[in-house]
Amino acid sequence: VTRFDDFRENLGTPRNALRDRLAKLVDSGVLAKVPYSDQPPRYDYLLTDAGRDLWPVLTAMRQWGDRHGRPDGPIRMAHAACGAPASTVVICESCEGQLGHGDATMLPKASLAPPPVSP
Amino acid sequence: VTRFDDFRENLGTPRNALRDRLAKLVDSGVLAKVPYSDQPPRYDYLLTDAGRDLWPVLTAMRQWGDRHGRPDGPIRMAHAACGAPASTVVICESCEGQLGHGDATMLPKASLAPPPVSP
Repeated sequence: VTRFDDFRENLGTPRNALRDRLAKLVDSGVLAKVPYSDQPPRYDYLLTDAGRDLWPVLTAMRQWGDRHGRPDGPIRMAHAACGAPASTVVICESCEGQLGHGDATMLPKASLAPPPVSP
Repeated sequence: VTRFDDFRENLGTPRNALRDRLAKLVDSGVLAKVPYSDQPPRYDYLLTDAGRDLWPVLTAMRQWGDRHGRPDGPIRMAHAACGAPASTVVICESCEGQLGHGDATMLPKASLAPPPVSP
């Protein structure tokens, strides 16, 4: 869903509220407004890289809600290829081990170990 | 930091606002209020399991901010043991591969593949 009327139909949001929200998401760099018709002027609202990168934020929030807010919720995120549950976790980019909050620390960027070399 | 006066000193939050926020976090099950003195009555505010489970949410948000909000930010989260950068990612609980948003799907819980057996 990328167009005003389709958002409206899907979300049931009043026109004014939807217009404000889309403008906010465009202003904050989460959506890009791309014309698909000049006459009349019409736009697709497409996710930017920054918008796509919100995915782990949303999945982490949903995971928390599934665990603590609505543990009886009927659906869960899964790996499409194998059907096993998917989770949001924190990993080390070098050893790829999962980190708990006691395993992580905040460091000045200049002191970070270099990222692993891709094969 | 687990005590009212220490929160106040660390955050610079006015007493009333801090009292309201702590009460909200206790009500929502993120903090537990545990007495450490009866006379006068004094409390530690301790993270619950639900509070601790907010960690991936906060790290995912900070990661987004580091990448798109303040890419010039001076610090990054790292694996304490090796100093390499840490990231919030979505993984499959079975094959442990990292998933992009095209790799994930929402399934009814009843149809999920069983989780892997722990060794």
